[in-house]
Amino acid sequence: MVASTEEHDHHQTVTNSKSARPYWGVVQANSFKCEVVAVGSELLLGQIVDTNSSWIGEQLATAGIDSYYQTKVGDNFDRMKEVFSTALDRSDAVIVTGGLGPTQDDITRNVIADLMGAKLVRNQEIVDRIAAMFGNRGRQMPQNNLLQADVPAGGQPIPVQPGTAAGLVCPVKDSTGAEKVIYAVPGVPWEMKKMVAHFVLGDLKERAGITSVIKSRTLRTWGMSESGLAERLAEEIERIDVAGSGATIAFNASGIEGLKLRLTAKGESEADADRQLADEESRIRAIIGNAVIFGTDEQTMEHAVLKLCREQGLTLGLAESLTGGLIGARITAVPGSSDVFRGSIVSYASEVKAKVLGVPDLPDVSQEAVEAMALGACESLGSDCAVAVTGVAGPEPWQGVKPGTVWMASAIDGDVQSSMVTWPFDRERTRHFTVINALNGLRLRLLDGA
Amino acid sequence: MVASTEEHDHHQTVTNSKSARPYWGVVQANSFKCEVVAVGSELLLGQIVDTNSSWIGEQLATAGIDSYYQTKVGDNFDRMKEVFSTALDRSDAVIVTGGLGPTQDDITRNVIADLMGAKLVRNQEIVDRIAAMFGNRGRQMPQNNLLQADVPAGGQPIPVQPGTAAGLVCPVKDSTGAEKVIYAVPGVPWEMKKMVAHFVLGDLKERAGITSVIKSRTLRTWGMSESGLAERLAEEIERIDVAGSGATIAFNASGIEGLKLRLTAKGESEADADRQLADEESRIRAIIGNAVIFGTDEQTMEHAVLKLCREQGLTLGLAESLTGGLIGARITAVPGSSDVFRGSIVSYASEVKAKVLGVPDLPDVSQEAVEAMALGACESLGSDCAVAVTGVAGPEPWQGVKPGTVWMASAIDGDVQSSMVTWPFDRERTRHFTVINALNGLRLRLLDGA
Repeated sequence: MVASTEEHDHHQTVTNSKSARPYWGVVQANSFKCEVVAVGSELLLGQIVDTNSSWIGEQLATAGIDSYYQTKVGDNFDRMKEVFSTALDRSDAVIVTGGLGPTQDDITRNVIADLMGAKLVRNQEIVDRIAAMFGNRGRQMPQNNLLQADVPAGGQPIPVQPGTAAGLVCPVKDSTGAEKVIYAVPGVPWEMKKMVAHFVLGDLKERAGITSVIKSRTLRTWGMSESGLAERLAEEIERIDVAGSGATIAFNASGIEGLKLRLTAKGESEADADRQLADEESRIRAIIGNAVIFGTDEQTMEHAVLKLCREQGLTLGLAESLTGGLIGARITAVPGSSDVFRGSIVSYASEVKAKVLGVPDLPDVSQEAVEAMALGACESLGSDCAVAVTGVAGPEPWQGVKPGTVWMASAIDGDVQSSMVTWPFDRERTRHFTVINALNGLRLRLLDGA
Repeated sequence: MVASTEEHDHHQTVTNSKSARPYWGVVQANSFKCEVVAVGSELLLGQIVDTNSSWIGEQLATAGIDSYYQTKVGDNFDRMKEVFSTALDRSDAVIVTGGLGPTQDDITRNVIADLMGAKLVRNQEIVDRIAAMFGNRGRQMPQNNLLQADVPAGGQPIPVQPGTAAGLVCPVKDSTGAEKVIYAVPGVPWEMKKMVAHFVLGDLKERAGITSVIKSRTLRTWGMSESGLAERLAEEIERIDVAGSGATIAFNASGIEGLKLRLTAKGESEADADRQLADEESRIRAIIGNAVIFGTDEQTMEHAVLKLCREQGLTLGLAESLTGGLIGARITAVPGSSDVFRGSIVSYASEVKAKVLGVPDLPDVSQEAVEAMALGACESLGSDCAVAVTGVAGPEPWQGVKPGTVWMASAIDGDVQSSMVTWPFDRERTRHFTVINALNGLRLRLLDGA
């Protein structure tokens, strides 16, 4: 799991089948197609990366809806109309994200109205809702925001409205006169996600006549290379290919968050799909071992560590040097971490190591120092266990030590263990890999003791 | 970088002109158009976010080349052909990224050959180069990699070849018979970037007849709302519109990193463009004040604070509660921060506040507590100044205090100041906004004293 995990490498996501057919862990339900259009000149100019389309694409795939194209277009009436039309011609449904804001540039609803040959009608219910949102914050609604309450005649507002922008679901004819549907959702990711998850996907599945349930589960691994995992799982993948039933496996290397195994199952019911996933998960666990899998789905390494500590009634402290607070930041990003997490001593200056952690006069980046830091954190923070890291993030060497050199330690009830790595990475990746690796060190010890 | 996870807010980028014409701070050189197509089923499925198109879009904009569409398509011959054709019909040039790998799925070169009505011819020079790359790593070249040496007859390999994939530059006729050009570059970002930067952009500028130099500069602001900034700058924007020369201004709100003003100038030379940018920057600074602008281009809030501390010979410490280490993590992400930054006491448990920071028995989220934390950090870490934060990140209330409630303090040489905010955000945004806002509090005081 090291040098080969460049986060953005396109070529990293791999198929797991020897057959020519790409094997994305996605089960196709039928021929209903939906494509995605992201609107915004800032997307074309690269000022903002379009993550919305990717997220929607993933949701569609998981729902079993084919999606063959994604297009980005600027805030321009003619070009938007052209792109929407093309999308409607080749797909059954189109999701447009962006262009629903309150400014003059936000013209998605105008373009859709034009395609429908309909007028925009101000929806008083939405006006009231927007006004109430401003009222709650003690502010007057600017006149511009009224535009967000306009709905093309014949279309409907999406009933889920997390922000001031109302989403739209509108019937539109394509160039052959066939009835299609276009959804408009905001470009603001959290608003978009709520509308898609709580309305658009269900509506699409209904239109597509999808009754089967597709579910997926991600097993998150740390400590094995992609080729190593593939080798260990080769026979199982072969077995699935031959069987042609049950959950499928796909690999997905997401860089610093480890290698993911994505299991996908299509079932007659939720329970059926769940059973297939559970079966496959236990087979994989039997093959590669529980220690390699640190979490499932959204469970990060810090979830895993917090859970183990909680189960074992242990509190956690940190002593961070090169990570500068990153481990604590990630741990406290988890709601409810305060029942386990005591705090962190970020000892960037050597004197802080001595004064607050009680580390004796030692080279900053050394086994003795990191072990003393871990024990000092337990003492200073009053925690049962601790993780400590010290190293050189670079780009320059420090006290003659090469960038990428990192010592990590874990202490449990006064018993300390440590290890060293030399990362071949830049400053940022060195720090992030250290976070996960150091936490994993404690996790493996807690697992052993559990 | 944990701290940058909210970079994805789409809705924030706005235009600044009262005219209908979108005004992206980009000076268009002429009508030559180039669009971008990203190939790969994994992009549609959301397994990988397409950052390549965004990066290429930014390069094109900076080079003064119009780019109106970006499309993602899966590894499918017919759909790729359709998308390439559409792109060629509406633009003068097309850059295709992805599909140049050695697997059977990688068919970009086949599709281009088909569009050209040409055969693929194995290029011996490329074969030798690929073989040498494998040889250098002591490995035999797999037969599959030979496919990467195929070039459509009439096309040329791109002379820059960082990896095993050879890029292509090929003349293609669009559906009207007009001569267009298509570039194929790999999906692997570092290979793609080298080819685009060192060959494609220059080739495009030559074809487009662009000789002028376009440069831009970003002013990063904190503390004024988008509408507030727009109001203050309305006259200046009007002036630029009327003058029709000099640098232009565009707004770009990137969420937790503050509002950005992007200045763009088109000059006869580098020096001419630089002079226009400097002129406009000083006009803007005169209008909105230096305090609002915390940095330019890639300078973050933490850069600004570190710089001021360094200039004034002050060391910095932190006492973090709800941010859990996030402030320290961001500060130490800056190379060379160790000359200013002493460390952070992450006091998540109340006892740590008392024991390590010497905070007396007070409600955790209170003015008295945060001020004692800031002074305690200076004392404990031996720093001249400190930033302290305590609050409730949510989702649950804490000690009866509402989520979003945050106290922030700064201490300089024993003099402490504090303020409270109630953020209307979720846990993640509450933490991130707190980081920037707390650092800005210290920055403004250091500016005042400077």
